[in-house]
Amino acid sequence: MVSEKLTGNAIIGQSGGPTAAINATLSGVVKEALKHSEIKEIYGSKNGIDGILSENIVDMRKILHTEDDFYNLECTPAAALGSCRHKLPSVDEKETYEKIFDVLKKYDIRYVFMIGGNDSMDTVAKLSEYSQIADYEIRMIGVPKTIDNDLVGTDHTPGFGSAAKYVATTVSEIAMDCAVYTVPAVTIVEIMGRDAGWLTASSVIPRLYGQQTADFVYLPETPFNYDCFIDDIRELQKHKPNIVVAVSEGIKDENGRYVGDGTQSGVVDNFGHKYLAGTGKILENYVRKQIGCKVRSIELSLPQRCSGHLLSKCDIDEAINIGKEAVSIAINGESGVLPIFKRTSLTEYKVKIEAIPVTAVANKVKHVDKKYINEKANNVTDELLHLIAPLIEGDIDIPKTHGVPKHFVIE
Amino acid sequence: MVSEKLTGNAIIGQSGGPTAAINATLSGVVKEALKHSEIKEIYGSKNGIDGILSENIVDMRKILHTEDDFYNLECTPAAALGSCRHKLPSVDEKETYEKIFDVLKKYDIRYVFMIGGNDSMDTVAKLSEYSQIADYEIRMIGVPKTIDNDLVGTDHTPGFGSAAKYVATTVSEIAMDCAVYTVPAVTIVEIMGRDAGWLTASSVIPRLYGQQTADFVYLPETPFNYDCFIDDIRELQKHKPNIVVAVSEGIKDENGRYVGDGTQSGVVDNFGHKYLAGTGKILENYVRKQIGCKVRSIELSLPQRCSGHLLSKCDIDEAINIGKEAVSIAINGESGVLPIFKRTSLTEYKVKIEAIPVTAVANKVKHVDKKYINEKANNVTDELLHLIAPLIEGDIDIPKTHGVPKHFVIE
Repeated sequence: MVSEKLTGNAIIGQSGGPTAAINATLSGVVKEALKHSEIKEIYGSKNGIDGILSENIVDMRKILHTEDDFYNLECTPAAALGSCRHKLPSVDEKETYEKIFDVLKKYDIRYVFMIGGNDSMDTVAKLSEYSQIADYEIRMIGVPKTIDNDLVGTDHTPGFGSAAKYVATTVSEIAMDCAVYTVPAVTIVEIMGRDAGWLTASSVIPRLYGQQTADFVYLPETPFNYDCFIDDIRELQKHKPNIVVAVSEGIKDENGRYVGDGTQSGVVDNFGHKYLAGTGKILENYVRKQIGCKVRSIELSLPQRCSGHLLSKCDIDEAINIGKEAVSIAINGESGVLPIFKRTSLTEYKVKIEAIPVTAVANKVKHVDKKYINEKANNVTDELLHLIAPLIEGDIDIPKTHGVPKHFVIE
Repeated sequence: MVSEKLTGNAIIGQSGGPTAAINATLSGVVKEALKHSEIKEIYGSKNGIDGILSENIVDMRKILHTEDDFYNLECTPAAALGSCRHKLPSVDEKETYEKIFDVLKKYDIRYVFMIGGNDSMDTVAKLSEYSQIADYEIRMIGVPKTIDNDLVGTDHTPGFGSAAKYVATTVSEIAMDCAVYTVPAVTIVEIMGRDAGWLTASSVIPRLYGQQTADFVYLPETPFNYDCFIDDIRELQKHKPNIVVAVSEGIKDENGRYVGDGTQSGVVDNFGHKYLAGTGKILENYVRKQIGCKVRSIELSLPQRCSGHLLSKCDIDEAINIGKEAVSIAINGESGVLPIFKRTSLTEYKVKIEAIPVTAVANKVKHVDKKYINEKANNVTDELLHLIAPLIEGDIDIPKTHGVPKHFVIE
């Protein structure tokens, strides 16, 4: 069904949680699309699929003029086209799809690029499926992004490297801060990652280079045991007054209950309503109750995913490249696929980009392999850190005005 | 009593909360001390005054060898010599002072530099007073630092500029992140400042340059009214789905009660134990209850004071200079004083450093003048932002290893 040369317009959308690199991918898609005569107009869909549904569409050629525009966009965190959390219904529910395809046809759109995480791959899979029913030739490409790094089929995801760099840097600085006092204290840093511990694991990368960081790391991949946690702290307190703990927001107890839900017997009663507390706060209060020393919890929160002032050059370069590659893949006739990273060497850091079907990716989660978690389940191995470390290397000199970042905004 | 030329050793201590610039001041003191023949040995007192009391003393000449050492130290957050929260008793309680002066005499220390905030100035004042009683010629100099910028007698404090830059940058990035969705949402950012709103006010500096930032700003200088707060949000929600609010941790209601204490009637009952919640969390739950929209709170926490990866060049340069000036002042015969910044121009940013008595500073708080707070007490004026803005200008290329900061550590 795929023709050799398909001429028409392209549309790009961004969806899911923002990252510091998702706009770099947008830039890459536009840069590459401009190079191909098959692609005439380049549209942006505001707020992901919602922009197509509501015809809230912008002309990227009128937005990105100069090299500086592209560079500023690449260095701007969050999603310049806006995002959405819209999961499409099954393709049997035709109404939504008819509406989408009416708009796609109206704008003569033959290329769709959806930059996003798991949900976006689901969107691409469904639109691809429906395009067969609609008998409308169109190339649908998913482009990965997520700070969680939990997409299957790819070595890693754009956005993860910059988030990991932020987490590694910030936890190292927190460890420096905590070390100044001599009174016994525990500092618990809560890091994003509901299902996978990639980002939390990254917090201890600085230890590879002799830098201060967290003493313990707890990931969602292994059950969290409250008693062992207290034992870990008590044991280390014999040698060191200040202890820093990195925990994934998504750690669960042996019964599969999130620690952050505060439903663990004896925890919720003491700590009040569950919406009040995150995982870090629950553990803070648990340590206070069990050990009684000075204790503080810090939730790194949104800055993990929007820290545009601290980008990984490796991540941003790759995010641009994967956007470009998405266009090449579409021009070459593929649809219903997403470009992914594949490592080509384990001795030095090298990746190539390949296309795989979005159906192989959607609605799955890539966990940290348990072989990278130590026996006590309170830290990760250096082997894992060496795998992640190249992704946070290199700095980007971002555009600033009077000392603050200059963000690229699409009205 | 002060001799023209006083020869002996010097000791430097750091105390109070860490900042990203306190080590730059330490570097400045050592650099200048090395230039003066009056100063023989240059000691560091570990953990502020505690290091003198316990003779936990290091030799700075053996720690700082090369220009790179000094530069790395200047770019390292937190207190390289360690800190303490030790408030000295009244000089009538001689035991402590006798012990301190025994050590000072033993090490032939004639110059003491205590880098710190309010409590450190109190320490310097008391040691100065006791030196008269002890009849031991010594020059005691306080050197200011605090991210809170609430020290009286000085235009601003070293450490504030870098913290303000971190806050301005981070809140701008959070505003970018929040803007990607179209559903009504409120994001509350809690910023350090128990008594003064300088740091919270800094969050909106980016608006001077057309950048995104907080919509509302609430400082401890004016009473916080829960009803007006909800009205502010409801009114703006008519025009804008995403609202970002910056609040000082130290805001108080009309009765002078801290919002973060959760003691406001009807708040604590719903939100559980007060130790669970900070100001941001209390307000998050208040908005949820009153308005019912999506709401999130973010406590910027320790990274505000230890974000060494995002230094203000203005701040670090000044922090080094004030350290150097502290030594010059001591060499010139002064004691019981601290160097402070005085603006010499209002049309362009220019400061000079002068010495004032520590007794004029200790145990006082410099608030944000109410003339800089708008009538509704929900924002600050551009005039205030223009005063603060120069302090966050300029970037520093910090030493890194493999993409993470390389910190200077004194064992």
